[in-house]
Amino acid sequence: MDGPLTTRKAATRDLRALFDPNTVAIVGASATIGKWGNWLARNALRGKDRRRIFLVNRTSAEILGEPVYPTVADVPETPELVVITIGSAGFEQAVDDALAAGARAIVGITAALGELGGAPLEAQRRLAGRVREAGAVLVGPNCLGVADSATGLNLAFGEGDFTPGPLAIVSQSGNIALELARVAARRGLGISRFVSLGNQADLDATEMIDSLTHHEPTQVIAAYVEDFGDGREFVRAALRARSAGKPVVLLTVGSSRSAARAARSHTGALVSASVAVDAACRAGGILRAATPQEAVDLALGLLLPKLPRGRRVGVVGDGGGHVALAADLLSEQGLELPALSQPLAERIATTLPANAATANPVDLAGGGEQDFFNYSNAVKALLNSGEVDSVMLTGYFGGYSEDDPQLARIERDVARAMAAAVEGSNRPLIVQSMYPDAPTLDPLRAADVPIYDDIQSAARVLARLVGHSSHEPSGVPDLGPVKAGAPVVPGYFATRRLLESAGLAFPEAREVTDSAGARSAAAAIGYPVALKALGSEHKSDRGGVRLGVASEAELDEALADMSSRLHPPSFSIERVAPGAAGVELLVGVRRDHSFGPILVVGAGGLYAELAGDVAVALAPVTENGAAALIRSLRIAPRLLGGRGSTPLDVGAASRAAVALANLAVSRPDIAEVEINPLLVTPTGAIALDARIVSA
Amino acid sequence: MDGPLTTRKAATRDLRALFDPNTVAIVGASATIGKWGNWLARNALRGKDRRRIFLVNRTSAEILGEPVYPTVADVPETPELVVITIGSAGFEQAVDDALAAGARAIVGITAALGELGGAPLEAQRRLAGRVREAGAVLVGPNCLGVADSATGLNLAFGEGDFTPGPLAIVSQSGNIALELARVAARRGLGISRFVSLGNQADLDATEMIDSLTHHEPTQVIAAYVEDFGDGREFVRAALRARSAGKPVVLLTVGSSRSAARAARSHTGALVSASVAVDAACRAGGILRAATPQEAVDLALGLLLPKLPRGRRVGVVGDGGGHVALAADLLSEQGLELPALSQPLAERIATTLPANAATANPVDLAGGGEQDFFNYSNAVKALLNSGEVDSVMLTGYFGGYSEDDPQLARIERDVARAMAAAVEGSNRPLIVQSMYPDAPTLDPLRAADVPIYDDIQSAARVLARLVGHSSHEPSGVPDLGPVKAGAPVVPGYFATRRLLESAGLAFPEAREVTDSAGARSAAAAIGYPVALKALGSEHKSDRGGVRLGVASEAELDEALADMSSRLHPPSFSIERVAPGAAGVELLVGVRRDHSFGPILVVGAGGLYAELAGDVAVALAPVTENGAAALIRSLRIAPRLLGGRGSTPLDVGAASRAAVALANLAVSRPDIAEVEINPLLVTPTGAIALDARIVSA
Repeated sequence: MDGPLTTRKAATRDLRALFDPNTVAIVGASATIGKWGNWLARNALRGKDRRRIFLVNRTSAEILGEPVYPTVADVPETPELVVITIGSAGFEQAVDDALAAGARAIVGITAALGELGGAPLEAQRRLAGRVREAGAVLVGPNCLGVADSATGLNLAFGEGDFTPGPLAIVSQSGNIALELARVAARRGLGISRFVSLGNQADLDATEMIDSLTHHEPTQVIAAYVEDFGDGREFVRAALRARSAGKPVVLLTVGSSRSAARAARSHTGALVSASVAVDAACRAGGILRAATPQEAVDLALGLLLPKLPRGRRVGVVGDGGGHVALAADLLSEQGLELPALSQPLAERIATTLPANAATANPVDLAGGGEQDFFNYSNAVKALLNSGEVDSVMLTGYFGGYSEDDPQLARIERDVARAMAAAVEGSNRPLIVQSMYPDAPTLDPLRAADVPIYDDIQSAARVLARLVGHSSHEPSGVPDLGPVKAGAPVVPGYFATRRLLESAGLAFPEAREVTDSAGARSAAAAIGYPVALKALGSEHKSDRGGVRLGVASEAELDEALADMSSRLHPPSFSIERVAPGAAGVELLVGVRRDHSFGPILVVGAGGLYAELAGDVAVALAPVTENGAAALIRSLRIAPRLLGGRGSTPLDVGAASRAAVALANLAVSRPDIAEVEINPLLVTPTGAIALDARIVSA
Repeated sequence: MDGPLTTRKAATRDLRALFDPNTVAIVGASATIGKWGNWLARNALRGKDRRRIFLVNRTSAEILGEPVYPTVADVPETPELVVITIGSAGFEQAVDDALAAGARAIVGITAALGELGGAPLEAQRRLAGRVREAGAVLVGPNCLGVADSATGLNLAFGEGDFTPGPLAIVSQSGNIALELARVAARRGLGISRFVSLGNQADLDATEMIDSLTHHEPTQVIAAYVEDFGDGREFVRAALRARSAGKPVVLLTVGSSRSAARAARSHTGALVSASVAVDAACRAGGILRAATPQEAVDLALGLLLPKLPRGRRVGVVGDGGGHVALAADLLSEQGLELPALSQPLAERIATTLPANAATANPVDLAGGGEQDFFNYSNAVKALLNSGEVDSVMLTGYFGGYSEDDPQLARIERDVARAMAAAVEGSNRPLIVQSMYPDAPTLDPLRAADVPIYDDIQSAARVLARLVGHSSHEPSGVPDLGPVKAGAPVVPGYFATRRLLESAGLAFPEAREVTDSAGARSAAAAIGYPVALKALGSEHKSDRGGVRLGVASEAELDEALADMSSRLHPPSFSIERVAPGAAGVELLVGVRRDHSFGPILVVGAGGLYAELAGDVAVALAPVTENGAAALIRSLRIAPRLLGGRGSTPLDVGAASRAAVALANLAVSRPDIAEVEINPLLVTPTGAIALDARIVSA
């Protein structure tokens, strides 16, 4: 079923019993409104023309006019799918009963199980093992249910069925799954499958995404994940889905300490560091979203038949404020509004008022009301011009639907003309409208033109789509064999030695403890030297680094000053790096429990935290891969030699990053290793400080 | 009417005839659906129980069943307010006719006038002069109309009246005014006054804000402005409004070149630099918004009866995903989720399931469904705890309204209990709901609790409100007298001399043109020296700066290298600033055509653009004011001496900023002046490079 990338047998499990069972038993069905067993029963029974639904409850004789069976063993047919929504004390027994009755799929709604940790987590693991041994699958526990709009299966909390459509929702949080579905419905985006994964005791996000890769109605996947398990397998699944034309949008949590605390008690998840998730997204071509709204906004954009292939945008609106606002927000996102060529601008201007703007942005300046087809003509002219890579329509269009039936008819015709223009072009149109729900915009929706109510969301999505279409995923690198090595020894000089043996260059240095030692070391190295007080991680913050010490007198003074303030156990006397024409980078690797070693490169030195200019990748990386990371930094122009300056040795910096990544990959006992700064000069890259944290 | 801050007679003009006229004439009224003259007539006639409406049109006998007068002179009563919506050719005459008929207020819808620039702009200026001479006021031209919900006046484009409420909308763009109104309506926020200002030939945003300061129904003002006119007057008006309890939220455009281009042809506006607008907002306590949605989100938050007084937030939700997401997004905004004290956490946990999280964020973990009052109990406990400054409720709450009438009743009771808790507390509650429009949330709306559908918007608003309540506006400084001075001379040494005379310190330097001169200058100054190639603004980018030149040989080499690459007209040999323990700042002043001289301080040196770490103020500033700016930078901890490092001389840096600002204030012939870097050391602040641009 899967391509050669698949390395995981789980992906081949058959989920038919989960999404299109012939028989369903609901253990814990209830007649009481507001109870989960009631919602599930009501929702399930709506599909009873396609499958047989059996309600199970020890104490009721009839629920919702249906017969009730005291136990799952009493159900007259083999229940292919068993949903369990009873108290946590009875859950394990209920699962075993379901397996004994021949269930192929089990959905565990019941909470207060594995997420409590300790013994309940162990019990949950053993239970999942029994499910797999029986050849069945388990969703949850601690979940909100599943639904499949094509098979009419709705075993989820809440009122109402899902409108069929291209979006699959896979979520560890039931309520976030509901919010995703609700936001999607508000945007007119239908749902293919809805899966609340809960504690992921058996079926997890990776396996669900693999299964959706082969699910025909699904065209885009929105996933909320707290615990990625084997994170690199998750990335591979996302890559397979992307290759199958079903990109993954990811929502996760845990960048703050308080959120990590909450996730732990929510689904028992140990969250991943935000940089690790970013690296995973880069590797897997996954689009990361910050909120359910943004996830749906991105999903809508990804459904465009043609993605934008460049940064040039043409903006059209009937109102100078709207087009100026769009221009600002698009520019802020790094997109460009090129001034249109004179022939094109003049052609657009022909039928517009004198005060119209046609250079880009195009402001119809009331010309949209004079002749509504001025809207579609301008959009079409831009789509076909070759002068822009995408077109953004912004502002009032859609509003005529509310003004008057006659105007609404014309507006719909204009929308139809725009849809035809999009279909005849190989560039996309994106719309922001004050009236995003206007029925007159239906022809655009039918042409998969995404419509946003907020211009900032529209601008952000467009920028993300440009990035998505122009960057191939970097893929998941092999980790290779682990090397046995001597244990990591703490301390500056031990760290230098380890990194030097891995191939990194450091300036000549000598460890000294007193003035006499310092004097002789400096004399041997040659002035000017640098003096560092050791024993503290934040040497330079604390005034423990003095560069350019030019004489013995200055050395004595600096040594005395640092000794009195910092009382370091020892000092390092170092050769001062030649010349001043360099840029300081930060290069580090940190190990994530799900995604493994993550390479971080960024602007370094004193400004590292301040600038927040970093790029990340799953380690190891190739030299080209490292160079691509470095070139993606905002500081890159200073390395590459713009404005007539000498280019710096990006190759040496890349090789340093490769070496550091290889070291960390081969040594799982290194939790974190960082060089900051790595001074990149025209002729090399030299590590001026480094630290290691053991696992 | 105004307080002592008022310095502008315009603010005292009576706008009664504009917002509550007894008689209205509509010149250009039309029977044709879709024409502005039709919309205006229909909307105006809905207020005819309160005032008399006269339709004016040369060619029709009857419109909408009303009699029509051929000219405004034929109207049987004096029309207090005349609305003009005819072709641009007849506009000037129509205004003169209206004045002759005794109009006290004129609304000019007609476009293609002053925004075209040149002669039409001159004609518009003269016309506005005639209006003022006649004691009347003019709104527009090129506007979309005005409305006042309290007086039942609707002279605006589009269908439907505005729901009365606390939000006043003042906008140079008609369509953005409409979008603001529509977004507000969607959020349940009503409108007090709606004013589309267009070209602002007479009545401008400043005067409108001044007038709204005394408008009882208005509690918050949303303004979209392209042209601020006298920007400092605009800030003073916003300060007066804020003092009257009516904060101003500002939307503007022009940070991108293409937007500036669009604004120019939209309303003829020359837009202000984004830093100037930021400085104005800081001075006036104005909240800047990026989109109409954000403007309304902020307005809703500003209506809270009590604003948050600190950064600590307590988060409550029934779902671990939602509370974790809220925690991440609040933390990203610089807010804090303190772990709750054990007694408080235990008290909240009492009635919750075993898997609930109660440390903060609080996840009811299904406890909300077991007993809905667990929601209000947790919210109330947090509001009254003293452990947080505000409470955020997030996620599903609101959704029970759709599930079942009985659940909806309980949900409303719980909302009522929360509203009571808010009223009994001096801390605010902010709500994010998947169901923001749920009627069960009405009790919260009635208590002015803002409800958002997007958690990121809610988090951003909360962070902005904390900033708003904890920072007093810095106010508008007097510009003082202009000094006559010799014209600004270009060049590095001339700039140094001018800035030295203004009180700024530079390292000793000598200008040289050849190797011999360089050698003797370096010998006089003493090695190591710095060598700079002059004649280019981007010296260090181009490799035109060499620091720490330690010997004559090195000097010769560097001089030869720069000569061959850069061919500079001359060089500067400079003393190297003592020690390395310094931080580089950028200090500059740029003159904005509306807001005057703007002081910019920021992280400087090579990383200035990269870090984007700047703070801005209207110049001049006091030393304390400059120090506050510097302390607000992200780089501030490196100046203030954290982690045991030596504090740097922020006083000297502040005095340098004051001196630079004073120079620019007194010399309007300086368009821009910048010191970058200003090296701040433990014992002073010294300018290492500077440039001036003449006006």
